[in-house]
Amino acid sequence: MPEVDLLLDEQALRASRLVTSLQESDPAALSLGIKLGDISPGRVTLEQPIRPEMLNGHGIVHGGYLFLLADTAFAYCCASLGRLSVTRNAEIAFIAAAHGGTALTATAAIRTTYGRNSICDISITTDHGKLLAEFRGTGSVMSTVK
Amino acid sequence: MPEVDLLLDEQALRASRLVTSLQESDPAALSLGIKLGDISPGRVTLEQPIRPEMLNGHGIVHGGYLFLLADTAFAYCCASLGRLSVTRNAEIAFIAAAHGGTALTATAAIRTTYGRNSICDISITTDHGKLLAEFRGTGSVMSTVK
Amino acid sequence: MPEVDLLLDEQALRASRLVTSLQESDPAALSLGIKLGDISPGRVTLEQPIRPEMLNGHGIVHGGYLFLLADTAFAYCCASLGRLSVTRNAEIAFIAAAHGGTALTATAAIRTTYGRNSICDISITTDHGKLLAEFRGTGSVMSTVK
Amino acid sequence: MPEVDLLLDEQALRASRLVTSLQESDPAALSLGIKLGDISPGRVTLEQPIRPEMLNGHGIVHGGYLFLLADTAFAYCCASLGRLSVTRNAEIAFIAAAHGGTALTATAAIRTTYGRNSICDISITTDHGKLLAEFRGTGSVMSTVK
Repeated sequence: MPEVDLLLDEQALRASRLVTSLQESDPAALSLGIKLGDISPGRVTLEQPIRPEMLNGHGIVHGGYLFLLADTAFAYCCASLGRLSVTRNAEIAFIAAAHGGTALTATAAIRTTYGRNSICDISITTDHGKLLAEFRGTGSVMSTVK
Repeated sequence: MPEVDLLLDEQALRASRLVTSLQESDPAALSLGIKLGDISPGRVTLEQPIRPEMLNGHGIVHGGYLFLLADTAFAYCCASLGRLSVTRNAEIAFIAAAHGGTALTATAAIRTTYGRNSICDISITTDHGKLLAEFRGTGSVMSTVK
Repeated sequence: MPEVDLLLDEQALRASRLVTSLQESDPAALSLGIKLGDISPGRVTLEQPIRPEMLNGHGIVHGGYLFLLADTAFAYCCASLGRLSVTRNAEIAFIAAAHGGTALTATAAIRTTYGRNSICDISITTDHGKLLAEFRGTGSVMSTVK
Repeated sequence: MPEVDLLLDEQALRASRLVTSLQESDPAALSLGIKLGDISPGRVTLEQPIRPEMLNGHGIVHGGYLFLLADTAFAYCCASLGRLSVTRNAEIAFIAAAHGGTALTATAAIRTTYGRNSICDISITTDHGKLLAEFRGTGSVMSTVK
């Protein structure tokens, strides 16, 4: 196996270890059934089942739960770079209502880091591939880990 | 009682009726224990108990739940004007971590309406009066009710 | 004159002096003809003439100039509290197109300050009183002055 | 030349024609010296010289001008898809101050379109390659052209 692939594997393993460690101490994510998907440095995918108590008065997934999943993906995506961060500002555009579908997917990618800050973009889709929301967050590092 | 006060009472009653009706069909709000406080046209206060499963990996209330409460207050605040609305874009600034406190309060006020759109500002505080987040949402009317 | 009024006068004078001092060294604001209106601690009003070169391809004032005026008002509003600040994040909702009118007005008010940070809300209207845009900015103090 | 390349050339030519047509009727962009760079469907690059009157009270390019360039790139990027759009909501994060450099570059890419709406991300850099700001806009189509 070429050396560069070994390096990439090591980086992905480290990213995965950092995110897993953060999630294990995250009651909010665990209680909602949020699961880790693909993880590499600066890129994280999460999945979450849609439960009846996540619906709002219009019979669709409450926008707050879409935001919560995106914000979780943001924190995990920063953690994948060894940067334990808190969200300072976040913006979300709601694109479509979640009719049908049994799960949500968050696909997060760091757009840029500067000083202690990160900007991260997250798309929320259903397991049917329907795009529900686009989230952008700006966060600050609280502490760094290796 | 002066006529103007009677009118104000009627408007507040109607606003309260509209919001109560929306909440009764809102599983997300009911399952989280979100309760209605003061309601008048364009102004809504909500309260929500802090539960252990709302904490994140840092031991503080997950920002997603602060957003969810604010977004609920946004929808109810629009409903208080007879405008059943969906959030299109929302922005939140996280100001302080919720250490201590046993409940959250959302204080929502419509800033402006234009055409089918509304802008609404919401402050989230603890029951100790600590300011946690400031939310601004832009929403669109789906339907109107009397 | 009661003592409390004297105090208010002194505070308004100091706020006015701080903002005037910032504006005198601000080529962008001066070149656009931005003028100071009412100033008190945490509240600032600005006016700006509408010039032909501020129009976009649709024949209306370019949204960038509405933002620029609002962002200037944000900086001046922070300065009115003795906090020389830079904008970190800002969000703007465009509400109506500026047809007619010969000037823009920005009305800025600090919503909250926390640590070195400020959140400030600014409404942009025409001199005909038409609401064009709502801006919210989050900024950080670079230095403080008395 | 393969057929697919011819098709790509045609699409790029059409995108370029649409954007050029919009710019020719845009006094704000022309008066600031904003020039078109690479254009293809959903992707636009703009350049703008830094002029003394664009500096603010801190001696750096006024954030309002960074926003204005980004917002122009947003409109042109929508136009490159034949969608003449207005910005409804926009969010900008200011990342670094523009010290040095003689020009600004905006690099815009459509993130998604849904119904009459578009979300577009724009990075603003100096000609030295320094990242100054990240902008995200949500816009609505006014009319479509071929």
